[in-house]
Amino acid sequence: MTDTRKILEEVRDGRVSVDEALVRLKTKPFEDIGFAKVDIHRSIRQGAAEVIYGESKTPEQICSVVETLKGNGCDRVLITRIDAEKAEEAGRRLGTDFEYFPEARLATVGEFPEPDGKGTVLVVTGGTSDIPVAREAEITARFHGNRVESIYDVGVAGIHRLLSYSDKIMEATVVVAVAGMEGALASVLGGLTDRPVIAVPTSVGYGTSFGGLTALLSMLNSCASGVSVVNIDNGFGAGYLAGMINHT
Amino acid sequence: MTDTRKILEEVRDGRVSVDEALVRLKTKPFEDIGFAKVDIHRSIRQGAAEVIYGESKTPEQICSVVETLKGNGCDRVLITRIDAEKAEEAGRRLGTDFEYFPEARLATVGEFPEPDGKGTVLVVTGGTSDIPVAREAEITARFHGNRVESIYDVGVAGIHRLLSYSDKIMEATVVVAVAGMEGALASVLGGLTDRPVIAVPTSVGYGTSFGGLTALLSMLNSCASGVSVVNIDNGFGAGYLAGMINHT
Amino acid sequence: MTDTRKILEEVRDGRVSVDEALVRLKTKPFEDIGFAKVDIHRSIRQGAAEVIYGESKTPEQICSVVETLKGNGCDRVLITRIDAEKAEEAGRRLGTDFEYFPEARLATVGEFPEPDGKGTVLVVTGGTSDIPVAREAEITARFHGNRVESIYDVGVAGIHRLLSYSDKIMEATVVVAVAGMEGALASVLGGLTDRPVIAVPTSVGYGTSFGGLTALLSMLNSCASGVSVVNIDNGFGAGYLAGMINHT
Amino acid sequence: MTDTRKILEEVRDGRVSVDEALVRLKTKPFEDIGFAKVDIHRSIRQGAAEVIYGESKTPEQICSVVETLKGNGCDRVLITRIDAEKAEEAGRRLGTDFEYFPEARLATVGEFPEPDGKGTVLVVTGGTSDIPVAREAEITARFHGNRVESIYDVGVAGIHRLLSYSDKIMEATVVVAVAGMEGALASVLGGLTDRPVIAVPTSVGYGTSFGGLTALLSMLNSCASGVSVVNIDNGFGAGYLAGMINHT
Amino acid sequence: MTDTRKILEEVRDGRVSVDEALVRLKTKPFEDIGFAKVDIHRSIRQGAAEVIYGESKTPEQICSVVETLKGNGCDRVLITRIDAEKAEEAGRRLGTDFEYFPEARLATVGEFPEPDGKGTVLVVTGGTSDIPVAREAEITARFHGNRVESIYDVGVAGIHRLLSYSDKIMEATVVVAVAGMEGALASVLGGLTDRPVIAVPTSVGYGTSFGGLTALLSMLNSCASGVSVVNIDNGFGAGYLAGMINHT
Amino acid sequence: MTDTRKILEEVRDGRVSVDEALVRLKTKPFEDIGFAKVDIHRSIRQGAAEVIYGESKTPEQICSVVETLKGNGCDRVLITRIDAEKAEEAGRRLGTDFEYFPEARLATVGEFPEPDGKGTVLVVTGGTSDIPVAREAEITARFHGNRVESIYDVGVAGIHRLLSYSDKIMEATVVVAVAGMEGALASVLGGLTDRPVIAVPTSVGYGTSFGGLTALLSMLNSCASGVSVVNIDNGFGAGYLAGMINHT
Amino acid sequence: MTDTRKILEEVRDGRVSVDEALVRLKTKPFEDIGFAKVDIHRSIRQGAAEVIYGESKTPEQICSVVETLKGNGCDRVLITRIDAEKAEEAGRRLGTDFEYFPEARLATVGEFPEPDGKGTVLVVTGGTSDIPVAREAEITARFHGNRVESIYDVGVAGIHRLLSYSDKIMEATVVVAVAGMEGALASVLGGLTDRPVIAVPTSVGYGTSFGGLTALLSMLNSCASGVSVVNIDNGFGAGYLAGMINHT
Amino acid sequence: MTDTRKILEEVRDGRVSVDEALVRLKTKPFEDIGFAKVDIHRSIRQGAAEVIYGESKTPEQICSVVETLKGNGCDRVLITRIDAEKAEEAGRRLGTDFEYFPEARLATVGEFPEPDGKGTVLVVTGGTSDIPVAREAEITARFHGNRVESIYDVGVAGIHRLLSYSDKIMEATVVVAVAGMEGALASVLGGLTDRPVIAVPTSVGYGTSFGGLTALLSMLNSCASGVSVVNIDNGFGAGYLAGMINHT
Repeated sequence: MTDTRKILEEVRDGRVSVDEALVRLKTKPFEDIGFAKVDIHRSIRQGAAEVIYGESKTPEQICSVVETLKGNGCDRVLITRIDAEKAEEAGRRLGTDFEYFPEARLATVGEFPEPDGKGTVLVVTGGTSDIPVAREAEITARFHGNRVESIYDVGVAGIHRLLSYSDKIMEATVVVAVAGMEGALASVLGGLTDRPVIAVPTSVGYGTSFGGLTALLSMLNSCASGVSVVNIDNGFGAGYLAGMINHT
Repeated sequence: MTDTRKILEEVRDGRVSVDEALVRLKTKPFEDIGFAKVDIHRSIRQGAAEVIYGESKTPEQICSVVETLKGNGCDRVLITRIDAEKAEEAGRRLGTDFEYFPEARLATVGEFPEPDGKGTVLVVTGGTSDIPVAREAEITARFHGNRVESIYDVGVAGIHRLLSYSDKIMEATVVVAVAGMEGALASVLGGLTDRPVIAVPTSVGYGTSFGGLTALLSMLNSCASGVSVVNIDNGFGAGYLAGMINHT
Repeated sequence: MTDTRKILEEVRDGRVSVDEALVRLKTKPFEDIGFAKVDIHRSIRQGAAEVIYGESKTPEQICSVVETLKGNGCDRVLITRIDAEKAEEAGRRLGTDFEYFPEARLATVGEFPEPDGKGTVLVVTGGTSDIPVAREAEITARFHGNRVESIYDVGVAGIHRLLSYSDKIMEATVVVAVAGMEGALASVLGGLTDRPVIAVPTSVGYGTSFGGLTALLSMLNSCASGVSVVNIDNGFGAGYLAGMINHT
Repeated sequence: MTDTRKILEEVRDGRVSVDEALVRLKTKPFEDIGFAKVDIHRSIRQGAAEVIYGESKTPEQICSVVETLKGNGCDRVLITRIDAEKAEEAGRRLGTDFEYFPEARLATVGEFPEPDGKGTVLVVTGGTSDIPVAREAEITARFHGNRVESIYDVGVAGIHRLLSYSDKIMEATVVVAVAGMEGALASVLGGLTDRPVIAVPTSVGYGTSFGGLTALLSMLNSCASGVSVVNIDNGFGAGYLAGMINHT
Repeated sequence: MTDTRKILEEVRDGRVSVDEALVRLKTKPFEDIGFAKVDIHRSIRQGAAEVIYGESKTPEQICSVVETLKGNGCDRVLITRIDAEKAEEAGRRLGTDFEYFPEARLATVGEFPEPDGKGTVLVVTGGTSDIPVAREAEITARFHGNRVESIYDVGVAGIHRLLSYSDKIMEATVVVAVAGMEGALASVLGGLTDRPVIAVPTSVGYGTSFGGLTALLSMLNSCASGVSVVNIDNGFGAGYLAGMINHT
Repeated sequence: MTDTRKILEEVRDGRVSVDEALVRLKTKPFEDIGFAKVDIHRSIRQGAAEVIYGESKTPEQICSVVETLKGNGCDRVLITRIDAEKAEEAGRRLGTDFEYFPEARLATVGEFPEPDGKGTVLVVTGGTSDIPVAREAEITARFHGNRVESIYDVGVAGIHRLLSYSDKIMEATVVVAVAGMEGALASVLGGLTDRPVIAVPTSVGYGTSFGGLTALLSMLNSCASGVSVVNIDNGFGAGYLAGMINHT
Repeated sequence: MTDTRKILEEVRDGRVSVDEALVRLKTKPFEDIGFAKVDIHRSIRQGAAEVIYGESKTPEQICSVVETLKGNGCDRVLITRIDAEKAEEAGRRLGTDFEYFPEARLATVGEFPEPDGKGTVLVVTGGTSDIPVAREAEITARFHGNRVESIYDVGVAGIHRLLSYSDKIMEATVVVAVAGMEGALASVLGGLTDRPVIAVPTSVGYGTSFGGLTALLSMLNSCASGVSVVNIDNGFGAGYLAGMINHT
Repeated sequence: MTDTRKILEEVRDGRVSVDEALVRLKTKPFEDIGFAKVDIHRSIRQGAAEVIYGESKTPEQICSVVETLKGNGCDRVLITRIDAEKAEEAGRRLGTDFEYFPEARLATVGEFPEPDGKGTVLVVTGGTSDIPVAREAEITARFHGNRVESIYDVGVAGIHRLLSYSDKIMEATVVVAVAGMEGALASVLGGLTDRPVIAVPTSVGYGTSFGGLTALLSMLNSCASGVSVVNIDNGFGAGYLAGMINHT
């Protein structure tokens, strides 16, 4: 509201006309490019990374948003849920700045920053099949300035494998638990650490895994405290949130 | 079919008339008492226990079935899902032979036999709230001639509590895993033993536990081998099956 | 593992016998009181608060756990999901140390500590009916050493009410969004702050609110980044996790 | 935004100080009464009716909101989902102005206005059991200034009963179709009129009616154009929307 | 049981040996062809039609079953859920006797019999898209000796279209109601006739039609008496049952 | 349409005025008693039984409908889903003509007719708990002029009990299969008879029986031909439909 | 009924024979073209647009219906859910009159009329991915004579973007809210306008968005008054209904 | 724990250094190959078979795990859910030791052992379509040292077919019941044997079979004792568990 006060004072002092003030009070902090309204946060102007949900956008639309962001001073952009074909086309247009991570279906524009978070974001998976979602979380967290470590394939049916990493688990600032099937990993991790556990159910499994629903329900009912859950296969969301917490 | 052969031979030899043979071939191995058809298995005549599902039967109906069974030589009867009120009335009528277990909502008629199974049936619960269902499994297994041991409140969010019982778990012939909420106990137990784990989801929990559905789904998707599942809160079914396996 | 090293060194140096070492390596960090295994974390011995899930425990069982914790040096205990009747009985037995919060269905044993978290935990509700769940989150967070503020009844259908608190929202370290019905509050809050939002769906509503399921699904699909979700009506879980994050 | 312009001009002209302008620009159009934020719409100040969702509010809270509204010039208030007991208590406190409609579980404060809508809102039910929900819609629509007519018990299994009212149906400005079970009424009505049909699924039925879900799904899949749906048993919502359309 | 008596008498009279009797008493009324057990009902030996569920059988398996049936005197076979490709291959092998109905995904082996049922089976569809399922019902009924009539595209949103066929509807012995979307056709038909209505939900629709589930639920909750329901898209089942009723 | 022709001819011949013809063409075959539209079918005037769905009607409403029916020449009325309390009040008012069947929650007004259907309606239950629903089917069928027989407690887990009634099953004109839990009875019955099987899922069971949903789904997926399904616990619907088929 | 009176009077006066009257009274206001019954509404004869559901119709069938409509004086036809391939074939046959809108999967035959509705239909989307459904609503509304405006990509997670269009929102006669994921847009819009909001859930999203179900449930539970809902992705239905309301 | 004692004694006796002991106490019984942690159970070193879940692993990953297992002395490996294409590639790399079973989507590395279980594992299917899942169970059981027999296509709608195998059923040590659709096979088998029945629901069916969910629910609600259930299509799990029980 200091902005409003400043504008009001300028009006009072005659330095700014009523009409100009009106415009400035109404100024929309986004740019309208037809099919999308691109947010122009202050943070963007200060070099922070912005995110584009790539799923249902054409390569043209993605590039269009990237270019709008760049034009507004945003040097680093993360594009989620972008498949290889789209990525190839976007990469051709956006040049060397553009990097694609096929397993995670992510692309980045601009450099990965030096990690400046408090500690480490630890990403743990129950099985081998959960790795792509884990990778999405890892790259997201790294692109937002976090140190990231990973442990793969330590599902609860072989509890000794998981326990052999107890030290690493207890040292992390935030833990991201990525698991499909019965999703029990989150509960066990929640019991091993007194730091937040972000649970990501994956669509790994068959039959009554119901595309990740069982893992999701399991994680929501975790008997461990400190566990919260994001959408099925939402590695990005978990990585982003983990980074936020690591920057508290 | 040896019975059929025997009857046929007696017919051939004229020792048995066609009509008598016809009756014997058609003899129904149950007794019709109007509202119910009471099975008169051979096993019953040999002193094995029979089971009555008490849920929707009146005390009169329950007693009626018990008396029919007794009249056919069955001395030991297990009555499941019988509430305290019904049990009181049935107890009045059936006398000292009748014993009620309120926590498990079970009643027994006749003595508990000496255990003659192979080893031990181990019943494990995730929490304190799962104990009633565990008790139902225990009494059922004991009433069918099994040695039973129990470990309560060793949910996976405190994995060290569970692990401190590793020896007991590895020594059991069958393990019954009783858990609500996220039901992860079954998977961890399945990883700790190479014996069958019978998972019993319980209706313990709230919100998205959906009355045990989440635990059930979680258990069906266990990443451990050797785990199978029974209906929600079906302590009887698990105890009965555990006893069967222990008598292989 | 330094503990293990220390024990090993004492064994090597003959200061500790093999048997004593064996015992110490196996020492279970919990106490078995029959129906429950009470965790005796180091943290407890250092005055941190412990939590009891009261739902399906009798007042006797609750008191029994409290006393076991106290006997192990834990002075502050939070009891969740305890109804008024149980609370009265427990209070009679546990004395003046015991305080009951009927709206939140929580009880505490011991003093609320001075807040020592980083900033403020802000609890926001969509409607008046969500207040009990919000209260559960608030008391939990305060009992774990956090400063807590609240805004009630600022659902998204009256967006100006919510926006008039923009400053408060942007200043909080963590935001807890408590809402039933369509649960849209989490998304709007997620867009207003760049701090973690913990969404708590409530069972407020009727018909297709399905006891909170709609709010839950809505929150899981939030188009805002930084939102994670806990179980329906799980005010405790949200307050606990918010406190964790506020203590990063 | 004319208001903003006016304030800015007054600031420019020195008629209003920066601080006063700041306050006026920030003025929240609601009153905070602790557990609730009461909206003070302009419409209220002009005599329009306001609505209170009574479900989870105490009689005290309801009265408190009513009094706040009255204090801000709102003479007519509709209270939804208020049961008989609460209504009695609220009535005692709010006096003769207060009227209760037990079947519809609605209460009104202030007079019903003369109907000033375009035409007639017609409320049709499939069965006798749907009448309470229909009554909720009717009273809501009448309290918002609409002429209302009703036809009860004309379910599609007796299509001749429904067809005998074809004239009435074709003359209505909006039709509210209230039905449980298979909810087919909405489709048939949608085919008989070229005006909007608002479908209200009711929780009438048993077994696979799933508390109104079947009727809801059926109505959402209506093969007739011009049908839209509100929540199960949401007679208020349908009556309110019908009134809106009738005032286009 | 007369058969058993006859066998016993022959044994008594020495006309049949014990072993032969044993074999005859045990004679399995099916033929085992490895992957399938082909029923050899008496009805088959009398020229009635038999049915093969073609869905997951290979053309070879289908032909194998057909040939086994023919070898046992069955001249007329109906094959359901057989796609065009399989049908072509089967047709090549089975020759001119084989006829394929692509819309209904049915094939027949042998002649259609003269209708000998009581009256007419009437098949009615809500829309054009329901016709393939209707065709499956029609051919099935005709192949089992029924006169069949059809009315297509008379959904309830245009009730006058349906009513213009009132006479035909009232004259039918059985009515098969085939509809997707909201499935209301069954209720209206049930109200127009006092004969059985067999409702077939179809997977026609999108979104919340949930592949026919909405139509199914709607039909199960029909407020008309005399309506029963078969599985989604189960035209065969409806046609078969309609034929059964028409032959009462 | 002969009626219409007749009216037109009378108009042409001047025997009937335009206005009278208009009235006769429009004559509604129901009576409007405010909360309900009572159908006055021709069948009623000929002594057939009419049905009232009692669930959500008050005793006054029920009596009102009964009296309207009687006033229109209907001597026999069946009232479904009427509880004991309502029945007592209705019985007081309707006198000796009224009979109540508490188990089936049915009441009848007027005499049971002599059976005039083709053969026998056979009602079979899986367990003892299914009997109330079976009774509802039986009384409904008998009240509509059918001979009815019943077999209780012959669930498929004791297949020999069911098979011992093969003769009865094969002789019935229609079979009503009443079962909860896994609902497999319908499939086995469907395989034993070549007559229609009407399957009634019951809400008997617990946990994943989901109030009858599992039995319903199971019955809909019956691998036997000739099986159709009605709503959960809909004994009336099955009995009514069975009667219809038995009167083909 | 005036028509009936007129026919009767003509019969009385001898101007029309009984047979002709009979035919006229029975005249079906639709044309039967085998697979479909084409409605020949009066409205059609007056130049209004008619709608064909293209989903499961072949291009031949679509053209056939169009030609029947044209033959009955209907110049403007809207074809919904028609894919590009079908459209190409239909276009070839129907000529220059035919226009295809690939994004909306709609085709039109005949001219778009001048808007003659009351005000403006405003279509708002939460994201870029919702645009195709929005386009379906827009074209439908325009083709039925409405002025239409659109705002895209103003989801609630960036509430300032939405609020910057407050004026446009408040000026619209009807608002169509198109959103997937958590579907919160409808509630916020409902709070910003006092005009009807028609909510269209879209199948945009992944995991627990369940193909639009979450958005649907969210919208049905909107805490704003005046919101009603149509089927998932049913842009046509929303546009049609919006047009209806705009023509009140 | 004898291992720990031994290590401690060696430390005490100076035979082993503290550091070496530390390493040995921490020795992880698995090998980390990056994307997976391969368990090196003692059993493996003794020639038992190990299992790889092939679903989401690349052929390279599968071979990598196989080679790690072989390098640790494991000669026999079972690979589940591996499609033909992957199998071909893996086979090329792993050589003659590798055998693929396309119907069961299983591959084996190493010899099938001589059966050393107690008795026979009997695998029974309801239909022809269930055979692939049955084959998965059979090969799994055989590869783990069990004698296996099978009966195919004996669904409950032709109960005589099933009953003709009563002897085989009663002689088996464990029965695996494989069925889709209504899944009733498990209940009937459970009634015919007093040995454990492992029920495997299959995704065979259409419409409301919901990909095996109906069969699963049906099996969970079996009225027979001794039945437990595994995930849909989980032939491997059933075969493995059956083998375990057969080795009690």
